[in-house]
Amino acid sequence: MSGGERPILLVEDNPDDVDLTLRAFKRAGVSRRVDVVTDGVEALDYLFCRAGHAARAGQPPPAVVLLDLKLPRLDGHEVLRHIRADPRTRLLPVVILSSSVEEEDVVRGYGGGANSYVRKPVSYTEFVEAARQLGLYWLALDHGAPVEPFPGARG
Amino acid sequence: MSGGERPILLVEDNPDDVDLTLRAFKRAGVSRRVDVVTDGVEALDYLFCRAGHAARAGQPPPAVVLLDLKLPRLDGHEVLRHIRADPRTRLLPVVILSSSVEEEDVVRGYGGGANSYVRKPVSYTEFVEAARQLGLYWLALDHGAPVEPFPGARG
Repeated sequence: MSGGERPILLVEDNPDDVDLTLRAFKRAGVSRRVDVVTDGVEALDYLFCRAGHAARAGQPPPAVVLLDLKLPRLDGHEVLRHIRADPRTRLLPVVILSSSVEEEDVVRGYGGGANSYVRKPVSYTEFVEAARQLGLYWLALDHGAPVEPFPGARG
Repeated sequence: MSGGERPILLVEDNPDDVDLTLRAFKRAGVSRRVDVVTDGVEALDYLFCRAGHAARAGQPPPAVVLLDLKLPRLDGHEVLRHIRADPRTRLLPVVILSSSVEEEDVVRGYGGGANSYVRKPVSYTEFVEAARQLGLYWLALDHGAPVEPFPGARG
């Protein structure tokens, strides 16, 4: 299948946070499909249609990437660096969604080209409100850059 | 005066659009102060506390810059380039707010490091809704990077 609506890509290794995020989007009325990958290497495989995600070739890239920082195999900062370094993904909106508000993480995140940095809310109510705003903002208000579907694995 | 709440900086040369934006923020319940500059050179003077804005020295930088593209003296892309090139301003959230959705502008905007690109809404109702979301997102949800007040003119 090619074309179709661009999904949200959630990069999150903690199953509780995945569950919370998916429930929050649903509760907030954000109906867009959310694809979930659970480590940094898989995030890049998804984006570049490689390995276990080779079948995504030709499908639309995500509308926005919600990126945790503390991830197995490759951390969020490194994932962001790869996204910004590749002409095929450099304009993708990336929102860091992390429980860390350490200055080093925030500065590295923005400095590395994150479009936004959002602290993971602590309560479910706040999470639903954050999901609503993330959805409204990045799926509707932000214009988004033209990003072509990926033709498939290149390297 | 130093410290205090970080204002919104609106960089917009069209008086009708300035008026519309200010009314939309007010109507949307966004009470944050909005400072307005009307060309690209003045935008940089404001940010770097120079020339007619030297008295801003020590005052907090804006929470977010809403940047039109077609501006007298220095266009929005050039303003963005200066913001991203200076260590004192490189982490400031910049949202391009333009009536242009030409691919060249969008790609140059994101590629130049804009955090977001929003098309100026055409109706007042849509403008109020956009102002509400811009306010909620960049004044509350986005964490923001640590940006120090500027000590004053440097060059």
